[in-house]
Amino acid sequence: MHELTVRRKVEFSDTDMAGIVHFSRLIVFMENAEHAFFEALGASVSMEHDGKHIGWPRVAVEAQFKAPARFNEHVEITVRVLKKGTRSMTYGFEIRVGARLVGTGEMTSVCCEMTGKGPRSMPIPAFLADQIEEAPSAEEA
Amino acid sequence: MHELTVRRKVEFSDTDMAGIVHFSRLIVFMENAEHAFFEALGASVSMEHDGKHIGWPRVAVEAQFKAPARFNEHVEITVRVLKKGTRSMTYGFEIRVGARLVGTGEMTSVCCEMTGKGPRSMPIPAFLADQIEEAPSAEEA
Amino acid sequence: MHELTVRRKVEFSDTDMAGIVHFSRLIVFMENAEHAFFEALGASVSMEHDGKHIGWPRVAVEAQFKAPARFNEHVEITVRVLKKGTRSMTYGFEIRVGARLVGTGEMTSVCCEMTGKGPRSMPIPAFLADQIEEAPSAEEA
Amino acid sequence: MHELTVRRKVEFSDTDMAGIVHFSRLIVFMENAEHAFFEALGASVSMEHDGKHIGWPRVAVEAQFKAPARFNEHVEITVRVLKKGTRSMTYGFEIRVGARLVGTGEMTSVCCEMTGKGPRSMPIPAFLADQIEEAPSAEEA
Repeated sequence: MHELTVRRKVEFSDTDMAGIVHFSRLIVFMENAEHAFFEALGASVSMEHDGKHIGWPRVAVEAQFKAPARFNEHVEITVRVLKKGTRSMTYGFEIRVGARLVGTGEMTSVCCEMTGKGPRSMPIPAFLADQIEEAPSAEEA
Repeated sequence: MHELTVRRKVEFSDTDMAGIVHFSRLIVFMENAEHAFFEALGASVSMEHDGKHIGWPRVAVEAQFKAPARFNEHVEITVRVLKKGTRSMTYGFEIRVGARLVGTGEMTSVCCEMTGKGPRSMPIPAFLADQIEEAPSAEEA
Repeated sequence: MHELTVRRKVEFSDTDMAGIVHFSRLIVFMENAEHAFFEALGASVSMEHDGKHIGWPRVAVEAQFKAPARFNEHVEITVRVLKKGTRSMTYGFEIRVGARLVGTGEMTSVCCEMTGKGPRSMPIPAFLADQIEEAPSAEEA
Repeated sequence: MHELTVRRKVEFSDTDMAGIVHFSRLIVFMENAEHAFFEALGASVSMEHDGKHIGWPRVAVEAQFKAPARFNEHVEITVRVLKKGTRSMTYGFEIRVGARLVGTGEMTSVCCEMTGKGPRSMPIPAFLADQIEEAPSAEEA
């Protein structure tokens, strides 16, 4: 799998006094699409595997905001695998309300064993890595 | 100690599309005043004590909203001890912007040992209970 | 109509360091069920009607927390009409994860014309009031 | 002015089930530092000026996360002017807990007249632009 689209509706508490979705919520929408991608693979961003608790802290996020999203609008968030590393994943995101492009983004998350002393990076478990492919780039697609 | 007042400023992300602070944030403001009260006693709502990890999950919250609070306004939150139980605390709250009463509320939190299987209620440790008094009621005050 | 149940999944950002859904998010879940109830009636808590902008600021909230909800759990929130006033509505809520009762609550919201000078209470428009009934009480049900 | 440092304390509701501040809150901390910078200049990111309502929607955000921040820790957020355009500002951010670098970031915000039809970019008002300088770059400093 290399791509997934999730749908959600803008809630009142997602908005701010400018009358639109606060940008920090758009970034959370992206995070949630990443989580849905994992679930679609039968995994979770917080899971037990081989006696380890594995988490995926993110090390980098970026987002570009193109147009507002408003209360009650139906939002589609597409997550694509841009890069599958041995210990990390980089995702690309697009957020749309119908034909309107609300925003784009990228996130890089690192596969970590969550120990009592904090996260320690580790190779992505094979059962998961085997199911993930990088999305074809725009030129190839 | 039986009362504490904390100050904060309304942030942009506290607001919603009605142009005012979202009510769920006012409730978080109350929670934070409770936490500040604990700190003023040299404690924390999440602390190690006598080999136990102690937390204070809340079991009941209520709030009445009287007037809006807006971006950049200076808010004062007063927390008062309404009832000191052997295993729980009930607090009363007032939120003001200057002379304007924004809201009132109550919360009850239970002293718990946070175990791997979830929270288990326990008596409030003496070092903490000894420092806490119930606030005089309105009639007495 | 007098009752509606909505479903959602707990998101990572709904949780706090106690490993469970932060109580302020459970209260937002209740608010969103109220909003869904309005939509099911072809209305919105933020709508234009008869040349007025109508909103529903809440004046009172209470919640009791019975059991935790956790990341990725499927939550059901039931909203019931407890009282239909001429200018306000009082709702009751139940939040469940399967058979587990996570919390209960009540909210009272006031029908208001949202003017430049702030909200001003007004009678609930007939098109809306006519569609809403009080839920049968537990004894009657 | 070209730089400002603000201080805040991590609140319980800033944390997530990984036991650390959720990354979206770190981004909000950056936004708030930008707002404090404006206030230090006698302005606001939401203000009336010359008969216009001026806002500063952001068009791009990026952040790198280096180390966790935890409940009750004292956080310092430094905002620096990286680029002063005629209609936009680009800021750089550093978030620290003592000597620990928690994260870095950049945001670009556009000066806009907030009209009923949405934001429309406009030149930064002179009273504000005149007070803002770009921070010396690392090489120069």
